[in-house]
Amino acid sequence: VLDGGLVVSVDLSVEGVHFRRDWFSLEEAGYRATAGALSDLAAMAAEPLGVLLSMGLPRGEKDTVSQALQRGAREACRSQGVQILGGDLSGSPGPVILDVTVLGRADSPLLRRGCRPGDEVWMTGWVGGSGAAVHLLGEGRGLPETLRERLIHPSPRIREIRWLQDRVTLTAGIDLSDGLAGDTGHLAAASEVKVILEAEKLLLDPGMEDAIHDPAERLHFGLRGGEDYEVCFTAPPGEVHALTEVFREVFGVPLTRIGRVEAGNGVHLQDRDGLVSPLFGGFDHFSDEEQR
Amino acid sequence: VLDGGLVVSVDLSVEGVHFRRDWFSLEEAGYRATAGALSDLAAMAAEPLGVLLSMGLPRGEKDTVSQALQRGAREACRSQGVQILGGDLSGSPGPVILDVTVLGRADSPLLRRGCRPGDEVWMTGWVGGSGAAVHLLGEGRGLPETLRERLIHPSPRIREIRWLQDRVTLTAGIDLSDGLAGDTGHLAAASEVKVILEAEKLLLDPGMEDAIHDPAERLHFGLRGGEDYEVCFTAPPGEVHALTEVFREVFGVPLTRIGRVEAGNGVHLQDRDGLVSPLFGGFDHFSDEEQR
Repeated sequence: VLDGGLVVSVDLSVEGVHFRRDWFSLEEAGYRATAGALSDLAAMAAEPLGVLLSMGLPRGEKDTVSQALQRGAREACRSQGVQILGGDLSGSPGPVILDVTVLGRADSPLLRRGCRPGDEVWMTGWVGGSGAAVHLLGEGRGLPETLRERLIHPSPRIREIRWLQDRVTLTAGIDLSDGLAGDTGHLAAASEVKVILEAEKLLLDPGMEDAIHDPAERLHFGLRGGEDYEVCFTAPPGEVHALTEVFREVFGVPLTRIGRVEAGNGVHLQDRDGLVSPLFGGFDHFSDEEQR
Repeated sequence: VLDGGLVVSVDLSVEGVHFRRDWFSLEEAGYRATAGALSDLAAMAAEPLGVLLSMGLPRGEKDTVSQALQRGAREACRSQGVQILGGDLSGSPGPVILDVTVLGRADSPLLRRGCRPGDEVWMTGWVGGSGAAVHLLGEGRGLPETLRERLIHPSPRIREIRWLQDRVTLTAGIDLSDGLAGDTGHLAAASEVKVILEAEKLLLDPGMEDAIHDPAERLHFGLRGGEDYEVCFTAPPGEVHALTEVFREVFGVPLTRIGRVEAGNGVHLQDRDGLVSPLFGGFDHFSDEEQR
């Protein structure tokens, strides 16, 4: 966050790490990368000002790759009423590279720090769908259309969070790119508080139900699957509840209280029996278990 | 250029395309990429606000690579009194990737369009050194220290151009990243004018003299070698000349009139005998002849 409420963020996508061409098209990769970058603006309750695309293109297919990425990026931008301002084109000795810079402005930027013990923890939408989709693709299994859609066309919650901020006090927020556990961990660390997530309350992506039969596995993706691009935020007790119905009517997206803030540190999960245990980490592009 | 004179630019560097580890260290690659990105602010006469680094890091060496790139980037930022605001870290399946986003503010941004027939064409510093250095490295020859320094530690001319803009009218400008011929071609196209470069006036990098004996070859690098990161600008006749001495005293860098603007289009070279012939293109990362 700079002078005048200017916010800027950047998100790098690399073929073989963030996407595979046999999983989805380059146009879809462009959409997804751009939507993911714009989601950083949602997390800060910022109004989007513009997008820059930096592309590294393998020789011999630079035009087709660049056009496909741009088509997808433009579509994602259009969904948020924002324009591509410029960027950079370069060669690549191998993977397709797409780095998306987003610019925005926030009069009162929502930050990771700022929540206090007693605050409620809320989230937009559903979690687990993207992580489950990547898992199924990695196992060579087919994807239900709803999960495929969730993976490829995430919806940055920019309008949703700005709408909420106009009506209630939001004390802290983060978008869910690494996974609910990891991202609320960042929020807890920045705010120097303990976050308790209530397993029963989490709104798991219904698209997982047919494809993933074990409820524990669905919960795993809800907590640790990345790239849902929903927003998790905190608010003083009692303020948000009255807005949930109209929010759902306006945006077609649920708003769910999923936990609470207490004094302490770290992220903890409260299970159906009320037992609370610590949670660790989220998605790490470098971890061996979850490397894509 | 956005509301409030906000300018933003992005510059992608990929191992195997823009740098090779056997040519210079990753720290040097970080310096060079960041200085190159900051040079876009010089071209627009913008004051730097901050830098974002997006890095794609090969597995198994992510920490060492990321630290080396950041050390170099920080050093380049320090030379311009600007800070690294944030960025993104990701894996890479192969090449080291470094994408640098720069933010700045310009009250009256210098653009590629705006010069008129009759204007003079000026440049800061020297041209040809970086292109000659890359050529020598590509042939497996050693580099004179001055050329190596020019290649690795380019100086974005941010203070220089802002200093000039405070004192005289600058009508258009561009930084020399693709090569003088190609970059003045962009300027000529944007301004819808003809640019005539005078071969005799070009200030060729003196570091080339010992290593490259053919004067025609030195001129070639001066016109077509990329990544000198000097600034070429235009000004109404007679305004800049009186500043050249004090400019050199203040910045230790020469300021040279290298040509003129006429009605027409394209970039043309006037040789020592006064003959004028068209010049084409600059450095193209995708061309077969000059691919690095």
